[in-house]
Amino acid sequence: MPTIPVVRDILSANERLGEENRKLLERYHICAVNVMASPGAGKTSLILRTVAALKGRLRVGVIEGDIASRVDADRVAAAGAPVVQINTGGTCHLDAPMVGAALEQLPLAEIDLLFIENVGNLICPVEFGLGEAARIVVSSIPEGDDKPYKYPGIFAAVDAIVLNKADLAPYVAFDRPAFWQLVGGLNPTAPRFEVSCTTGEGLAPWIGWLDDLVARVRGAA
Amino acid sequence: MPTIPVVRDILSANERLGEENRKLLERYHICAVNVMASPGAGKTSLILRTVAALKGRLRVGVIEGDIASRVDADRVAAAGAPVVQINTGGTCHLDAPMVGAALEQLPLAEIDLLFIENVGNLICPVEFGLGEAARIVVSSIPEGDDKPYKYPGIFAAVDAIVLNKADLAPYVAFDRPAFWQLVGGLNPTAPRFEVSCTTGEGLAPWIGWLDDLVARVRGAA
Repeated sequence: MPTIPVVRDILSANERLGEENRKLLERYHICAVNVMASPGAGKTSLILRTVAALKGRLRVGVIEGDIASRVDADRVAAAGAPVVQINTGGTCHLDAPMVGAALEQLPLAEIDLLFIENVGNLICPVEFGLGEAARIVVSSIPEGDDKPYKYPGIFAAVDAIVLNKADLAPYVAFDRPAFWQLVGGLNPTAPRFEVSCTTGEGLAPWIGWLDDLVARVRGAA
Repeated sequence: MPTIPVVRDILSANERLGEENRKLLERYHICAVNVMASPGAGKTSLILRTVAALKGRLRVGVIEGDIASRVDADRVAAAGAPVVQINTGGTCHLDAPMVGAALEQLPLAEIDLLFIENVGNLICPVEFGLGEAARIVVSSIPEGDDKPYKYPGIFAAVDAIVLNKADLAPYVAFDRPAFWQLVGGLNPTAPRFEVSCTTGEGLAPWIGWLDDLVARVRGAA
């Protein structure tokens, strides 16, 4: 009896549809960023801060992924960005078909930078490309400095690492050098940002990195 | 061509092996608690506080689940509790076969209360029973008060809810009544605990609940 590689098939189908998303995004010169993190690390807060910082300069759109609810999409819509909420209905990550369906609902000609906020999960989203130009992970100080050690796959896979909730550093035991040393062992080249989405500190280098990324995507298109 | 319900089969196999774990635990009068949470919510810290609080009264054993590393198991071993580390090698939750293999490595005759610390994930672990007597979720103040709204499945499924990092409440915007109201809508009967595993505050009612649970499991055996 022949082997039946079901998982491989699912991933291949996802890759195929991810490529379709990628081509569609390229046609509209949209730079898409897949934002991954634990629940409550600050993905939505980072997106809201970025929407505000880029206002009048780059047009930001957002796809919100959650297993349930639309609270994040409501917050983004209130900030004036076009947004589509995906409710995965229990699935622990976004996949390319879900994002493809969401892209059909967005005014693509009016978007320069598209954030795709993944389901809060440090494990499963890594396996599923969505057609994005870049993937980032948001980690946060109260989660602890051992996260790269315990979830190495996501820290190794991303194009940038944002360490959020810097304002809470005085109140928790978090060894910054140890955290970045673990990150460096997994991903020596990805840019690193330390920010607080509550106070706004540290956001300028992150915004600069996004500016470069958008310019690069436009240059390649 | 007949339908092939692969997912159902996996879950049924897990249930079958979960029942075997349950019978083994009952034979040794062990009360097993499946501890679920986001990455960094404080599962290991809660276990360490509990081991210390129960010292000389109940014998606590621990199964540590992580996709990689053994840092948590090292911390538990240093506290003097028998511990087995499961590295799932990428899988985003524990399952009954993994726990069954870990049980073979533990001195079961010397354990009253067994914590099974699941992989840091608010979604996938809920689907997989391990043979435990109770399931709990640890949520934490810095994760935000909207977590029950966004991850309803786990809050509805558990037998108790522990809200950790109470010491950080002065530094973050967290609406306690809103959080517990959301929890109440999903799970009106589960006991609720607010604790800080950093300062030790609020732990007494949690320890009392565990005492009752252990007594109940012994009474049923």
